[in-house]
Amino acid sequence: MKIPKTHPRYISLTTRHVLEHGVKTGITSLNGLIAHGRGEAFDYLLGEKTHTFAKEAIAEAANVLLAAKHPVISVNGNTAALVAKEFIILSKLLRCPLEVNIFHTSKKREQKIKKHLLNKGAKDVFLAEKKYVIDGLLSNRRYVNGKGIYLADVVFVPLEDGDRAEALIKNGKKVITIDLNPLSRTAKTATITIIDNIVRALPLLVGEIIKQKKSKKLALQKYDNKQILKQAVAFLRKGKYGSGGPS
Amino acid sequence: MKIPKTHPRYISLTTRHVLEHGVKTGITSLNGLIAHGRGEAFDYLLGEKTHTFAKEAIAEAANVLLAAKHPVISVNGNTAALVAKEFIILSKLLRCPLEVNIFHTSKKREQKIKKHLLNKGAKDVFLAEKKYVIDGLLSNRRYVNGKGIYLADVVFVPLEDGDRAEALIKNGKKVITIDLNPLSRTAKTATITIIDNIVRALPLLVGEIIKQKKSKKLALQKYDNKQILKQAVAFLRKGKYGSGGPS
Repeated sequence: MKIPKTHPRYISLTTRHVLEHGVKTGITSLNGLIAHGRGEAFDYLLGEKTHTFAKEAIAEAANVLLAAKHPVISVNGNTAALVAKEFIILSKLLRCPLEVNIFHTSKKREQKIKKHLLNKGAKDVFLAEKKYVIDGLLSNRRYVNGKGIYLADVVFVPLEDGDRAEALIKNGKKVITIDLNPLSRTAKTATITIIDNIVRALPLLVGEIIKQKKSKKLALQKYDNKQILKQAVAFLRKGKYGSGGPS
Repeated sequence: MKIPKTHPRYISLTTRHVLEHGVKTGITSLNGLIAHGRGEAFDYLLGEKTHTFAKEAIAEAANVLLAAKHPVISVNGNTAALVAKEFIILSKLLRCPLEVNIFHTSKKREQKIKKHLLNKGAKDVFLAEKKYVIDGLLSNRRYVNGKGIYLADVVFVPLEDGDRAEALIKNGKKVITIDLNPLSRTAKTATITIIDNIVRALPLLVGEIIKQKKSKKLALQKYDNKQILKQAVAFLRKGKYGSGGPS
């Protein structure tokens, strides 16, 4: 089904199709579709736009990523389907690896995601190694790559789950995330939380990093993630919801 | 993966598994999973409980269904997976047919849903017929069954989309729906909107119908669907959201 670009919900519908395609090609999990639906609802309540609280978090994220010694971008089944291209641009701008780390562990799906990223032009794509463990996590999800997340001082993990965000923080890493639910554990735990749709936020983050790289001085600013979350929650509660929207 | 009953999110996780199973058996669509995720987010914001505004709507729904001449229950890929058993009990209590009507039309999936309902003990399961049309809808979704929705004075269509709810109303039918988003077009358009998780609401509706049947007089009450929706939106905006929740 071809969706006309003039359709009022063009981006939302296209995003759904991309994820459904991700499921069909074995990259995205069924649970990932449900998680995306939750995001859609919060995005709808946020008016499906990038707010000031997101823009501030994006500027700070660029700042922290550029200052990092070993930044790593963590990729899962939803982000691989939605923003592989932007991830690859980011990894080149930051000279950092991409590491596949998925919630519902599956060797087969990990390999498919890796191949998908390489096909799109990625250079370094790491997978988990049994030797390297993030403390505080159960199951296969605790394994990371020895040259990737294990070493990282800053981990960029959009659309992450709460347990993992907490474990990364407890292991001394800075966590930058993108999450549409400002009340989620991930949002509350992360060092920097970008409350926005990843499809809108990633191009802005790329632009911000290019801008900050050019200016060659890091934009020093006061940043308070709790305040950012408060603003997002306030919008959720008082926001002018549109008419219509997902039924 | 077996989820222990003591898990704080047991119902939510079990529901997800049932729907994923629905996808694997060809009953539920991938889009249905995304729609379910949207519902999860709203349910989370509503505190994952059945509020007074839902109970009032359930009582009125029982009332209207019992007074109907030709009530029909419309079944889609999500409701077939989640509440087939309750639908069948309802259809026996109300002596009314079940009619399969799915958003993403697929003859194969329609047949699978019909078979699933018959396997679970349903008697009459109708499918759409090309001769009978609901005005105001495009595509295959406009076709209905001549002895089912076409004739119906009251249609029970939980988890419906806005276009179809509107079209049914314009065709002179009363529409009873269940929708977790009080801001959706379906919620706003329906005659009676039960803002609740279908998994919690259906057993309550069955209980209410049995109670009202026994008392043999219909509970006359003032019912104002707009007021019900207002209460739900007010809760969404001011509600005490839990900590944690979907990430």
